[in-house]
Amino acid sequence: MKAFITIEGNDGSGKSTVIEGLKKVFAERGVDVVFTREPGGSAIAEQIRGIILDPKNTEMDDKTEALLYAASRRQHLRETVLPALEQGKLVICDRFIDSSLAYQGHARGIGIEEVYDMNMFATSGMLPDLTLYILVSPEVGLSRKTHQKELDRLELETNNFHKTVYEGYLKLVERFPERVVLINGEKTKEEVLSETLKVIDKFLNK
Amino acid sequence: MKAFITIEGNDGSGKSTVIEGLKKVFAERGVDVVFTREPGGSAIAEQIRGIILDPKNTEMDDKTEALLYAASRRQHLRETVLPALEQGKLVICDRFIDSSLAYQGHARGIGIEEVYDMNMFATSGMLPDLTLYILVSPEVGLSRKTHQKELDRLELETNNFHKTVYEGYLKLVERFPERVVLINGEKTKEEVLSETLKVIDKFLNK
Repeated sequence: MKAFITIEGNDGSGKSTVIEGLKKVFAERGVDVVFTREPGGSAIAEQIRGIILDPKNTEMDDKTEALLYAASRRQHLRETVLPALEQGKLVICDRFIDSSLAYQGHARGIGIEEVYDMNMFATSGMLPDLTLYILVSPEVGLSRKTHQKELDRLELETNNFHKTVYEGYLKLVERFPERVVLINGEKTKEEVLSETLKVIDKFLNK
Repeated sequence: MKAFITIEGNDGSGKSTVIEGLKKVFAERGVDVVFTREPGGSAIAEQIRGIILDPKNTEMDDKTEALLYAASRRQHLRETVLPALEQGKLVICDRFIDSSLAYQGHARGIGIEEVYDMNMFATSGMLPDLTLYILVSPEVGLSRKTHQKELDRLELETNNFHKTVYEGYLKLVERFPERVVLINGEKTKEEVLSETLKVIDKFLNK
């Protein structure tokens, strides 16, 4: 049962709703799954995330942002993910390295391979066992997000940025065909949850 | 005159005293030199440094620490060092990449080459034009530091850590023979300043 699964998605993809659904399903099954997300209760990673998302930090350089995400990732991995895996648990994490590759690597223009190599320093070469990308077209994603009241520094980016993030994820599906499974987030909530669950179950029973 | 010079040293090396001396000399000469140090007035880099040095952050992973230093370095480079160099100025910086190589790479045991590669991401391949290492034996360094009242998280490390930092710097002298000049910090203040100045002047007039 021990595995490290990550869930990715562009803004407005409904990723959080899917994760809530997964929590219920695994609770009903009586399976002990650690659901987490960076910074995930690590006090240090939390402080780092505070700097990244503060809308006042308009002078943030793209590479600084990528390095801060990697620092937060490292700390969360050490304090939360690795201890759970060592106990033989299933860990499902909301966003991980692929977010950095899509947002900082592709959309910010640093380069997917550069951000990948730097993140390999951060994770000591560790990648998720399975990653699900729940994607919606940038138009659908943005129309869903406009109902939200307080947006953080990254959510406040331009429409073009969100479009490029989406393209970045599509590139990554080709880059990591053995690890990544694409889920169409534009279907109904029930369908998206059911498809996600099917992929996870297939992976766990393989 | 445009050049990027960094001054390095182990704890208690008298590096700060030398830099004060250099400031006076260049002011007397009427030369406009930008003296700086990470985080160097960059608000974002300052916030990052706050996390690194907070003595409460005892759970800090070594690689997290290295990534945070690199993030602060990137931001300071973009906001302070590069703009000054673009104006054709001489920049003298108190600590830079070599500190990460000696402290995180060697003393923390991550590996000098791993930390170097990750920092090359942060600086986009940029290295100082000239670096001076002002070194004292760890015993001398520590005896000087004990008079100081408030020590930060890194200064509070064990004697063995400070010894390993010193060894790390010595390794780096061999790794970067064309860029690094070693200065014996155990001589008198006047001698150390005079020797440092001689090396800088020779470099600038070459």
